[in-house]
Amino acid sequence: MVKVNQNYLKLPGSYLFSEVARRISAYSAAHPEAKIIKLSIGDVTRPLAPAVIQAMHAAVEEMGTFEGFHGYGPEQGYPFLREAIAQFDYAARGVDILPEEIFVSDGAKSDCGNIGDIFGADNVVAVCDPVYPVYVDTNAMAGRAGDFQESLGRWSRLVYMPCVESNGFSPEIPKEQPDLIYLCFPNNPTGAMATREQLEAWVDYANATGAVILYDSAYEAFITQEDIPHTIFEIEGARTCAIEFRSFSKTAGFTGNRCAYTVVPRELERDGARLNSLWNRRQTTKFNGVPYVVQRGAAAIYTPEGRAQIMESIAYYQNNAQVIRAGLSAVGLECFGGVNAPYIWLKTPKGMGSWDFFDLLLDRANVAATPGAGFGPSGEGYLRLTAFGGAEATREAVERIKAVL
Amino acid sequence: MVKVNQNYLKLPGSYLFSEVARRISAYSAAHPEAKIIKLSIGDVTRPLAPAVIQAMHAAVEEMGTFEGFHGYGPEQGYPFLREAIAQFDYAARGVDILPEEIFVSDGAKSDCGNIGDIFGADNVVAVCDPVYPVYVDTNAMAGRAGDFQESLGRWSRLVYMPCVESNGFSPEIPKEQPDLIYLCFPNNPTGAMATREQLEAWVDYANATGAVILYDSAYEAFITQEDIPHTIFEIEGARTCAIEFRSFSKTAGFTGNRCAYTVVPRELERDGARLNSLWNRRQTTKFNGVPYVVQRGAAAIYTPEGRAQIMESIAYYQNNAQVIRAGLSAVGLECFGGVNAPYIWLKTPKGMGSWDFFDLLLDRANVAATPGAGFGPSGEGYLRLTAFGGAEATREAVERIKAVL
Repeated sequence: MVKVNQNYLKLPGSYLFSEVARRISAYSAAHPEAKIIKLSIGDVTRPLAPAVIQAMHAAVEEMGTFEGFHGYGPEQGYPFLREAIAQFDYAARGVDILPEEIFVSDGAKSDCGNIGDIFGADNVVAVCDPVYPVYVDTNAMAGRAGDFQESLGRWSRLVYMPCVESNGFSPEIPKEQPDLIYLCFPNNPTGAMATREQLEAWVDYANATGAVILYDSAYEAFITQEDIPHTIFEIEGARTCAIEFRSFSKTAGFTGNRCAYTVVPRELERDGARLNSLWNRRQTTKFNGVPYVVQRGAAAIYTPEGRAQIMESIAYYQNNAQVIRAGLSAVGLECFGGVNAPYIWLKTPKGMGSWDFFDLLLDRANVAATPGAGFGPSGEGYLRLTAFGGAEATREAVERIKAVL
Repeated sequence: MVKVNQNYLKLPGSYLFSEVARRISAYSAAHPEAKIIKLSIGDVTRPLAPAVIQAMHAAVEEMGTFEGFHGYGPEQGYPFLREAIAQFDYAARGVDILPEEIFVSDGAKSDCGNIGDIFGADNVVAVCDPVYPVYVDTNAMAGRAGDFQESLGRWSRLVYMPCVESNGFSPEIPKEQPDLIYLCFPNNPTGAMATREQLEAWVDYANATGAVILYDSAYEAFITQEDIPHTIFEIEGARTCAIEFRSFSKTAGFTGNRCAYTVVPRELERDGARLNSLWNRRQTTKFNGVPYVVQRGAAAIYTPEGRAQIMESIAYYQNNAQVIRAGLSAVGLECFGGVNAPYIWLKTPKGMGSWDFFDLLLDRANVAATPGAGFGPSGEGYLRLTAFGGAEATREAVERIKAVL
């Protein structure tokens, strides 16, 4: 008789974004006339850059010919893409990353979840609170989270690192000693960024204790302030303690095109094993690479035209972030983030609960946000707003929110 | 201190196809003049069908516009594709499968590996011997295989079901009672097919014992004989005991385009849980869907033109299979498969070992095959040849093999 993975049965409710989508659908069904503006899910809205479109058309054309057809590619990604990443995302910043340390994949969400495969089930995992739910749920599925404590909204075996106003939404090194530490900068959901000194402290800590930092840098392209590291590998010592996740989703609007990558340095060893070899084994065994057409599209963002085009879209979203921050701050709402990130972390007024404020904005302003409480207990009292909408809709959403306060 | 997944360290050597590729590369480097014909890895060689190319171009075009842009899609696949699959791959054969039972993914390899996520680590797994290595390696990674016994070439906790000449390469129900049973028909690597009666026996057995059949049907499009089931769901009772894996890779030449799907019926419950819900949770948490452009391409094979075009390519490969079978049989080699499958299972002459015969063909005929022993102990004494090459190259490979015997 088959036994199912009991850890799945411990997962509470549904995935945060599904629940948000459900409430929006229910509201829309009941109020078909309402024009809802979604500042909720972190999906982009601007089309793929012309250089990407051109490269994808050319690749589709190739796939229709005997000479240009590409069947199974390397599971780790084509050399043309791995080399471009190494050159433009790393060498250009003075960071040496070898192409064979880069694993191209179908998404940072997949990788952040799947990376757990190469680690034992008994590692202690530390996550920020609030946190992107994928880190928590995938570790719960693997049995590393223990049991979900309904009353606390926490898992019994996870180490939570509160990111709150008093510490500038930057996690402090926890009292318990974790093995795997998920860090996400620029942060989803708070929009906070770590300074060089803060990252140095994490790297030193991980090297001293034998921990591994799982560094999610999917929003790197949104960093605007000088002196903020764009990759954990700018920090000395990171090559012996960190794995970095990057994505084309927000950098180049690839949410529906699916391409990302994970960097596992060759020096990174734990428990007598090279993590690069383990991840390579995982990927070659359970994955078959990203579509050729998509990899060609991704590589196009490293051309001069492609670069200019994606920077234009990023600037557009950055402007939305400013509009939200400035507009809501002007009426006395407290806003965090939005400077080095496409997320604004909005404090609810009058101590209102996250889901209550979510429902209020949906009902009275027809604006959808994401309740901070959905990201963990320390997110209670906040909403996440995203800058990925249209400029006009974003402005209107801000006006509508102001009108119902 | 981080602990790695110790099961990874138990995996012997490298992945079969990597080792084959390594030997071919080494030979090529030493003999740059050699024109090697690869009848080894199961990769297709014919370009994508014109209908697929046209649909992909149109979808790329959409992705470059504000109105047509698609961001995050449903993790389970777009309704247009799930509905086409339900209609043309199932309803057209009199089989009722609901769109919500179909999960579109990036590959059957991914799914055959990832499906293990929803099952407990203590299930007993049965595999055919010889077997597609992904079933074995992914279960070994999850700790279900026990230890690798070098001298036997087997894992201590797996149940092996020999598929040998005496049983027509069709596995018999094992004495041990397995929980998870991987079946692959048309079979990779032997090219054997199960009859309706044989599948009925498996379904009855699984329902009686509470086992789950993991039915890999990636080569379904190659079935030529009448009365052979094209899906396990043609068998009464399969909805309460089977999960089916299908792929566009061989059906439509999508090996470099990455699209597949997995069917988990809603009635399928084990251990008090609906497997459809568990798989849905897995996919929504660890996966973000297949690129929109690729799903549009996949849907194009269900149009009348698309259908006609892919059938033409399949017929081309089927003809190659006949050329190999007929040519090698004529000189006294024993060939199996190749009738309902793109694989020919060739018995080595004079009791020669698989890897020895592989090396001999590579060295003397410059033909690359896949050693049967790489698929498991019962594959010793066989080679797998594939029908996915060009017609001319296939003919020449057969002549070269004949010449060195």
